[in-house]
Amino acid sequence: MSKDERQVKKITPKTEDFSRWYVEIVQKAELADYTPMKGMMVIRPYGYAIWENIQRLMDQRIKATGHVNAYFPLFIPESFLKKEAEHVAGFTPEVAWVTMGGKEELEERLAVRPTSEAIIGYMYSKWIKSWRDLPILYNQWANIVRWEKVTRPFLRTTEFLWQEGHTCHETAEEAEAETLKVLGFYKEFCETELAIPVLAGRKTLREKFAGAQMTYAIEALMSDGKALQMGTSHNLGQHFSKAFDIKFEDRSQTLQYVWQTSWGTTTRMIGALIMAHGDDSGLRLPPRVAPIQAVIVPISMGNWKESILPKARAVEDNLKKAGVRVSLDAREEFTPGWKFSEHEMRGIPLRIEIGPRDVAAGQAVLVRRDRKTKETAPLDVLTVKVPALLDEIQASLFQEATKFLADNTRAAGTYEEFKDILENKKGFVTSLWCGSESCEDKIKNETMATIRIIPLENEERSGRGACVCCGQEAKILAYFARAY
Amino acid sequence: MSKDERQVKKITPKTEDFSRWYVEIVQKAELADYTPMKGMMVIRPYGYAIWENIQRLMDQRIKATGHVNAYFPLFIPESFLKKEAEHVAGFTPEVAWVTMGGKEELEERLAVRPTSEAIIGYMYSKWIKSWRDLPILYNQWANIVRWEKVTRPFLRTTEFLWQEGHTCHETAEEAEAETLKVLGFYKEFCETELAIPVLAGRKTLREKFAGAQMTYAIEALMSDGKALQMGTSHNLGQHFSKAFDIKFEDRSQTLQYVWQTSWGTTTRMIGALIMAHGDDSGLRLPPRVAPIQAVIVPISMGNWKESILPKARAVEDNLKKAGVRVSLDAREEFTPGWKFSEHEMRGIPLRIEIGPRDVAAGQAVLVRRDRKTKETAPLDVLTVKVPALLDEIQASLFQEATKFLADNTRAAGTYEEFKDILENKKGFVTSLWCGSESCEDKIKNETMATIRIIPLENEERSGRGACVCCGQEAKILAYFARAY
Repeated sequence: MSKDERQVKKITPKTEDFSRWYVEIVQKAELADYTPMKGMMVIRPYGYAIWENIQRLMDQRIKATGHVNAYFPLFIPESFLKKEAEHVAGFTPEVAWVTMGGKEELEERLAVRPTSEAIIGYMYSKWIKSWRDLPILYNQWANIVRWEKVTRPFLRTTEFLWQEGHTCHETAEEAEAETLKVLGFYKEFCETELAIPVLAGRKTLREKFAGAQMTYAIEALMSDGKALQMGTSHNLGQHFSKAFDIKFEDRSQTLQYVWQTSWGTTTRMIGALIMAHGDDSGLRLPPRVAPIQAVIVPISMGNWKESILPKARAVEDNLKKAGVRVSLDAREEFTPGWKFSEHEMRGIPLRIEIGPRDVAAGQAVLVRRDRKTKETAPLDVLTVKVPALLDEIQASLFQEATKFLADNTRAAGTYEEFKDILENKKGFVTSLWCGSESCEDKIKNETMATIRIIPLENEERSGRGACVCCGQEAKILAYFARAY
Repeated sequence: MSKDERQVKKITPKTEDFSRWYVEIVQKAELADYTPMKGMMVIRPYGYAIWENIQRLMDQRIKATGHVNAYFPLFIPESFLKKEAEHVAGFTPEVAWVTMGGKEELEERLAVRPTSEAIIGYMYSKWIKSWRDLPILYNQWANIVRWEKVTRPFLRTTEFLWQEGHTCHETAEEAEAETLKVLGFYKEFCETELAIPVLAGRKTLREKFAGAQMTYAIEALMSDGKALQMGTSHNLGQHFSKAFDIKFEDRSQTLQYVWQTSWGTTTRMIGALIMAHGDDSGLRLPPRVAPIQAVIVPISMGNWKESILPKARAVEDNLKKAGVRVSLDAREEFTPGWKFSEHEMRGIPLRIEIGPRDVAAGQAVLVRRDRKTKETAPLDVLTVKVPALLDEIQASLFQEATKFLADNTRAAGTYEEFKDILENKKGFVTSLWCGSESCEDKIKNETMATIRIIPLENEERSGRGACVCCGQEAKILAYFARAY
């Protein structure tokens, strides 16, 4: 599609067909595109620029908590994957296998990493000898391949980008503390940077990572009422250290297996931004991760190149100096109206219009993408006004999403209520659960809902009651939802 | 190896066995480690931190010249690789092939990208319609796999990390200008950031990239007298646009094939840092890419924790505020002397020693890694003195390498001289060459030297003379060397 045709057609309203709306935004905002290989996408520059912001802001948190980055191989020998029984069972169906190098058939086939516990575990067993070598707090930014049957750009793709943390500790307590510390900054990251409120808690054994002792996750609510897992943090216990023989001499000279964690967040977060904040005009990006935070549109009338453009350039320079990611859209081949809808589609948080009357009055018109409200401001206060407005937009998107989450989290005491909410209202349903896998399965089969998380402070909060499914005594309060 | 054992043994002197010296630095400075898969390495945190600095500084230059980052798939269908005849012939012997996804045999096998021209070319043919869509100036940071027979950490590995630029232009002239612009900032990057002087020029057709019209490269001289290619920039002409049907409507409404370039630099640059600057005590890192620019070692004697440590912490805080990447080594289990050799091995540019007498005198001892010279400086000038010394070290490493390059570039008029230099002195040999592939081959077979580059300003400089190999008329001045 050429640039001229790109904006002619409006996108499908999200209430009409949410999936189609989603895919249209992905393509029309030029976040990603399909390739001829099923489930493999190209992340286009605008989408990748969001990812660069996410990477930078997440990497700061990873490093601020004492972690360092490293890089482990893309391939994992099949025999390594097989060392941890649950792990191989969980991941083998999804592995892309390299069987030939040049013209030679390989003696052992190599997995393209579906996750890196196995190869990292092997290296840790070489490096770790003593408690003095602990803790090991490593992270890597990498690409991952999982042979998925049903795919959707950003949300579930054959290849995706992520960060994966892999740590080793002296004690079970330290590993548990690390798992929760990471869960904590994942939650804080989503709320602060992505303006998406999340629920944090543990997964059921049915939903845990293949090979983990316990999986914790953060879950967000998309605007169609379905849940999306935004990140996971696993306490691996000694599962992998026993499989890979990662031992250390402890402080009393006894050989022990290390205690491990692993955790990750992915390019899926870009999908979450679309589904949590987008509207019928396109994306609405939170300023903190928006590649362009403000766009200046000179109103191209009369001798605008002499009268307006120099003012627009001055505003651009000043805002750049003030640290705003600003862009001046001086393209001549498009009308201001056409540009407005393109910038809305791309979710640029703030539009700054400067027309002939504005120049005369020494002002600009500021249009918020989130609410589409307009206000004028004198040109000479823009370096203060614009950053303040961006903060307001960030806060306002978060408030909106927080209200939506609260409004769409409902308690159900009976199975009838439970089913009614999922069918007619969607969102999260909180109910008591007896803890049996049979109730968990029955609910999933009958309602398509799964337990997304069990809140951490559960034991104190829940009290006694009846399981929403079987009616037996239940002590666990769980958050159920249909999910991506 | 535990931390206690790590430094006990000295490394092999570089004059004794350069290859062994190199591999020992890689391992003892904990830059990288071997994995059980041939040619695949782990980049350990210290090595990866150098890569992060390289990435950041290179990415700035890529963006400052108008390029944007994107991300294309890891896999390339075999049929795509085959579209450009030279390309497939050049790369097929090195491809790792994915033939299975989960339990299913794939209908078409997928190459793990050995470079991305083919998949990117396919996407460009979808996106580009008009001259208004040009130029396309994309770059990606990615991992690459080439099934190499002989491997060495950083220099030649089965998997490596790189950036690859892929651009499309309206005219041949614009593509050529882009190719040279990139070559220019690659050279400037190596000299400014890595403190490694490079020769820039074009490759012979024999040495060009498979599928390019013309390959340009930068070449550096390692301290064993062998050359190392540090980066390449290819003018692809219309080779790929014809193979992938990348057409645009030009300004006169005629359909044309786009003109393309591609260019890359890799983790090999870390190997260059070792081989260009290292000495018998280990690495010597240029401050601009050093993960730690200065390390503070409190001399642990008597009541040092009360008397010295607080001063050392204050110095650390002040230097951090001054923007220095500084680290305080307050570990109790190691002696100062042990720490000194570890920091030398790791190439930290500046060591700041603070002992009891220094505290009394309100000073610190500054020891440069490059020259091992010592000086004292009052504590209250360190925030000025240290950054200035780091600049001096950066400049001094570059001067040293520049002198080495000049001293080891020799002109040879006869084939006898030519062979004598390569055998007994090493380094670059400049000679006239007739331009025939048969002379190029003969020289390679008999001396193991290849034409590393033909300088750009060649036509004017060379004048007439005789080919160093066949004695026939020659107009091309070429730089020959044995190379990695």
